[in-house]
Amino acid sequence: MPYINIKVTDENVTKEQKRALIRGATELMVKVLNKEPSTTFVLIDEVNTDNWGIGYEQVSEIRNIIK
Amino acid sequence: MPYINIKVTDENVTKEQKRALIRGATELMVKVLNKEPSTTFVLIDEVNTDNWGIGYEQVSEIRNIIK
Amino acid sequence: MPYINIKVTDENVTKEQKRALIRGATELMVKVLNKEPSTTFVLIDEVNTDNWGIGYEQVSEIRNIIK
Amino acid sequence: MPYINIKVTDENVTKEQKRALIRGATELMVKVLNKEPSTTFVLIDEVNTDNWGIGYEQVSEIRNIIK
Amino acid sequence: MPYINIKVTDENVTKEQKRALIRGATELMVKVLNKEPSTTFVLIDEVNTDNWGIGYEQVSEIRNIIK
Amino acid sequence: MPYINIKVTDENVTKEQKRALIRGATELMVKVLNKEPSTTFVLIDEVNTDNWGIGYEQVSEIRNIIK
Repeated sequence: MPYINIKVTDENVTKEQKRALIRGATELMVKVLNKEPSTTFVLIDEVNTDNWGIGYEQVSEIRNIIK
Repeated sequence: MPYINIKVTDENVTKEQKRALIRGATELMVKVLNKEPSTTFVLIDEVNTDNWGIGYEQVSEIRNIIK
Repeated sequence: MPYINIKVTDENVTKEQKRALIRGATELMVKVLNKEPSTTFVLIDEVNTDNWGIGYEQVSEIRNIIK
Repeated sequence: MPYINIKVTDENVTKEQKRALIRGATELMVKVLNKEPSTTFVLIDEVNTDNWGIGYEQVSEIRNIIK
Repeated sequence: MPYINIKVTDENVTKEQKRALIRGATELMVKVLNKEPSTTFVLIDEVNTDNWGIGYEQVSEIRNIIK
Repeated sequence: MPYINIKVTDENVTKEQKRALIRGATELMVKVLNKEPSTTFVLIDEVNTDNWGIGYEQVSEIRNIIK
């Protein structure tokens, strides 16, 4: 019955990558904790880079500096 | 002072349904725990079906198989 | 497949009250959104009154003033 | 290593305001808890006013009544 | 910069299992999304079985029936 | 009506520090977004250092290495 919430910046995560995250996270619950996959939820939140901060800065600004 | 967060897939939840969820969840806090409705928060997140997984699969794929 | 998270202060919520919250929240999903109860999760977090603030104040302090 | 999640209604929060929230929240962690800013995350969620309820009502409806 | 939150029931998860969850979830972010591990957070919440419901029932009750 | 959730490791955060976090976070909402403090919630989660990972490692292990 695990619930896994993955938060990443919304920088072109593809449908295939989301599927790989869901499969990998579910597999991890089965392998490490012997959990039942049919009641394992994985939810992915894609967060705008203006709305995510690290080290006092917006990720959108950090990306601009790096460019 | 309760805080209730409801996460559902974003499959055409209407404004009226959202209102019903807010009223019902608030009522539950009042009835069961005698909480004060004026400081009861209900937040609804609608999650894209590509971003929600169950049983190793994306909900968007499960919906396709059922069609 | 809904996921509901209920956060309340940890002020002697009984096992029966928790059960009532779980049943009521699940029922709300079935009635309003026609969701499947067998994949409806309800999680209750009980938060220490020192760790919950409203109106600039800790709930533990608000409770003391009221006493 | 703190993680701060700020949820507000999506009512025209500007990029500058988001930056001020990120800086202020990070500063709070440094000042109060002596945390390291380079591993302090701040995430802002903007929630539609139809999806946020208080006192049994949708915020979108409360805003309409006030107008 | 991903943030992963894993919620499981508090049924004797060992320190070694927690470490395996942290490593596995971080590795998933690196492999699938090419993320930087030094800013990847994994947080595990262990939830009391009285506080987790599925299919209208508390997990503590479901465990009792199965015994 | 903001909701702020602060997650930190459970390393002897005092009641006074929690109060400072609650006041500071509420003040930030008032100053930056002109929000109403009486409906501003601040919730603090203290997470065991075994349950928090960064850079593949448990914080409890990182603390041991530093000692």
